[in-house]
Amino acid sequence: MITVVIIGSGNVATHLCTAFRNSTGVRVIQTFNRKNKAIGTIPVTDDYALLRLADLYIIAVSDDAIAEVSQQLPFTGRLVVHTSGSVALEELHSGNRKGVFYPLQSFSMNKTVNFADIPLCIEAADESDTVFLKTVAGSISDHVHPVDSDQRRSLHLSAVFVNNFTNYMYTIGHELCKENRLPFDLLRPLIRETAAKIEDVSPEEAQTGPARRHDESTIRKHLDLLKPHPGYEEIYRLLSKNIREMYPEQE
Amino acid sequence: MITVVIIGSGNVATHLCTAFRNSTGVRVIQTFNRKNKAIGTIPVTDDYALLRLADLYIIAVSDDAIAEVSQQLPFTGRLVVHTSGSVALEELHSGNRKGVFYPLQSFSMNKTVNFADIPLCIEAADESDTVFLKTVAGSISDHVHPVDSDQRRSLHLSAVFVNNFTNYMYTIGHELCKENRLPFDLLRPLIRETAAKIEDVSPEEAQTGPARRHDESTIRKHLDLLKPHPGYEEIYRLLSKNIREMYPEQE
Repeated sequence: MITVVIIGSGNVATHLCTAFRNSTGVRVIQTFNRKNKAIGTIPVTDDYALLRLADLYIIAVSDDAIAEVSQQLPFTGRLVVHTSGSVALEELHSGNRKGVFYPLQSFSMNKTVNFADIPLCIEAADESDTVFLKTVAGSISDHVHPVDSDQRRSLHLSAVFVNNFTNYMYTIGHELCKENRLPFDLLRPLIRETAAKIEDVSPEEAQTGPARRHDESTIRKHLDLLKPHPGYEEIYRLLSKNIREMYPEQE
Repeated sequence: MITVVIIGSGNVATHLCTAFRNSTGVRVIQTFNRKNKAIGTIPVTDDYALLRLADLYIIAVSDDAIAEVSQQLPFTGRLVVHTSGSVALEELHSGNRKGVFYPLQSFSMNKTVNFADIPLCIEAADESDTVFLKTVAGSISDHVHPVDSDQRRSLHLSAVFVNNFTNYMYTIGHELCKENRLPFDLLRPLIRETAAKIEDVSPEEAQTGPARRHDESTIRKHLDLLKPHPGYEEIYRLLSKNIREMYPEQE
């Protein structure tokens, strides 16, 4: 049985605890957080001195707390990983073996996720630790990918575009609907289809709309409509410019 | 039996023909297009003079051809609708009764759609025509919405944000993956979850990421990574600025 201690009590820590509960071969024997808040029935401590010995320590805290937490660990030579997309391996304290265990997903506290579908990106300074992390990650996810630090940083950046910025596009749609007394439900099938379409074709092929077809008359009408929202107007203008340049006019 | 003639041979015309084939009470008796290209087994003509008499004429052609097609129709007093999100009702020729039959979805030729799930936005100059269009639309869609021209224009604009611009965010993610020799498949679960999340919460609540939490250090790292792509860098900067302003810092 592989033993794991999880440090943190946020979304990632909680979802990892839940995922490992259903895994075979890996057990979370303790969690640590400053509020001493238990996750399920797993023993919890708020005292670094009481951390139990384990095969793996997963630091699932906010990016700017990772370095400090890794320094507080009262042992050396053990495998310590963080779960961040953007923090370098080297920010972990040098006394322990270093690794990364990065689930590429956006978690919400109240929403259960099927961890088996979530890509788990792993990295370790040491080859045998990489093999070990593969085993641990494979016990909860069907999609384990060894990636290096540069690749991980790019993935995190890509995630900002496809998740954070996409969600902001939904927000603008929502806002425009509200202003015009239209239910946001009208846009939901389109949102679903937009995400579903790229399961079959690349996003480059899936692109449609006035900017792609250089329909300047529609673009002008839309920019007019956006006059009361200079922020949205600027976004519309910039994204349309980029799309236009990507798809040169066909005649 | 309500009879319909569909003018056009593109995505919308084709998908409408397919949808009406499974409807009860409405039949497409003829299609018209200049190439004389049949859709399924429906009789086709390329000669305006041979257009059959019908209860409804649906002009499903590109936006800039709608006015001209409506002028060519060799009759008056009949109900003629177009399927565009952004063309005014008034652009239809005045000799006939005017309406709009706008399916709020992005269609691809090779992808079957379940029309029942697609919102159909209808509009007519005349009240009895509105009632009639409700019947026709209701025979293929479970989501029929009478909207006025202003609302329709806003919906079309919203669709550009949640569909066209969202798809462009996917394209950027795809491009960044390719450059870093990463499979785009890594991002798919996140893309699916991003779309699924707002079925339960509003996009405003669903927003996460460095900009929302005013994480300037991560934003700086990302802008550095984007240096080779001035276009993407500008988009990242603008969207982050807008998100930051929307969610004031909490302390």
